[in-house]
Amino acid sequence: MEFSSKLLEQAVYEMSQLPGIGKRTALRLVLHLLRQSESHTEHLTQALTKLRTEIKFCKNCHNISDVELCEICSNPNRDASLVCVVEDVRDVMAIENTSQYRGQYHVLGGKISPLDGIGPQDLTIHSLVEKVKAGEIEEIIFALSSTMEGDTTNFYIYRQLEQYKIKTSTIARGIAVGDELEYADEVTLGRSILNRIPFENSLKN
Amino acid sequence: MEFSSKLLEQAVYEMSQLPGIGKRTALRLVLHLLRQSESHTEHLTQALTKLRTEIKFCKNCHNISDVELCEICSNPNRDASLVCVVEDVRDVMAIENTSQYRGQYHVLGGKISPLDGIGPQDLTIHSLVEKVKAGEIEEIIFALSSTMEGDTTNFYIYRQLEQYKIKTSTIARGIAVGDELEYADEVTLGRSILNRIPFENSLKN
Repeated sequence: MEFSSKLLEQAVYEMSQLPGIGKRTALRLVLHLLRQSESHTEHLTQALTKLRTEIKFCKNCHNISDVELCEICSNPNRDASLVCVVEDVRDVMAIENTSQYRGQYHVLGGKISPLDGIGPQDLTIHSLVEKVKAGEIEEIIFALSSTMEGDTTNFYIYRQLEQYKIKTSTIARGIAVGDELEYADEVTLGRSILNRIPFENSLKN
Repeated sequence: MEFSSKLLEQAVYEMSQLPGIGKRTALRLVLHLLRQSESHTEHLTQALTKLRTEIKFCKNCHNISDVELCEICSNPNRDASLVCVVEDVRDVMAIENTSQYRGQYHVLGGKISPLDGIGPQDLTIHSLVEKVKAGEIEEIIFALSSTMEGDTTNFYIYRQLEQYKIKTSTIARGIAVGDELEYADEVTLGRSILNRIPFENSLKN
């Protein structure tokens, strides 16, 4: 792409550094900003700068937060002895949306992924182990995505915690509510049969 | 979506104001920036701010430019008597990429679109008419997209210029090179037969 302006080229380049944004999309977004008033661009850049420079992470669960201790961790109605281990803030939001969970979270900040150069020391695993060591936690629920990296991370944490004799569980894998059996993949369907639950339990939800 | 942080919510909101970016995509982009170093966000916001505040438009063709008179308009090898009317900078880039055109451009900045509240006075039509009135232009090529709005804009400009007796043309519509006839729409195929060209001409390209 040949640009008629260096400023335009630079803006498109920086925009296209975002994941999933190619050069053409970046150009479309940047031209959109040019068509809008200057205050539009100002609001966007200010919000991004403010977020990046002032963002805090909850000292207990490491979730993104505006204060030292996030709303969930400081809520006395949440069960602090039950901790759900998730990858990032989006997982917390997804689980909170279900209104089914009354425990706390522990946000790892990623998954162990040697290919991307992410090792256990890049995640908040140490702080989770410390919390368990201090005897604050009774049960840990693993809720990472079931990929190679997610399974590796689960297993790594599981081995770290083994000696402390706490309960560990993982979210149920199975056929999604409303899905047709014939379109399910074999692994999921197989697991959903192996890990079947008493019929009465399914009546409760 | 419930956010654990107002800063995050604000950044996601501003990002989702961009066209084609929904809340989920905005969240993904913003979280990406949070995972990168602060300088990443700085570079992005600086490039956008610089573009929005310092951008110039060529005083002759109204294309985006860093200087008063853009590279194309100031190039003595380009034919100033031949002007291609386009919608925006992307069309200029697309035509320049073909290396087939040696004239100049006139960037309208949009199309006449009553539904979006864009009238002739919002575009650079007046300045095009002035150029024609001054006798600088011999031929005008309409290269707007062939939509209702594009056709309306073409026709509006055509009527404005009628009295000056200059040559007006429009880019050829037809079956794209490499396309199969059976998949072409009827309007395009019909026009490509009506506006057929001498076979010898097709050998030149």
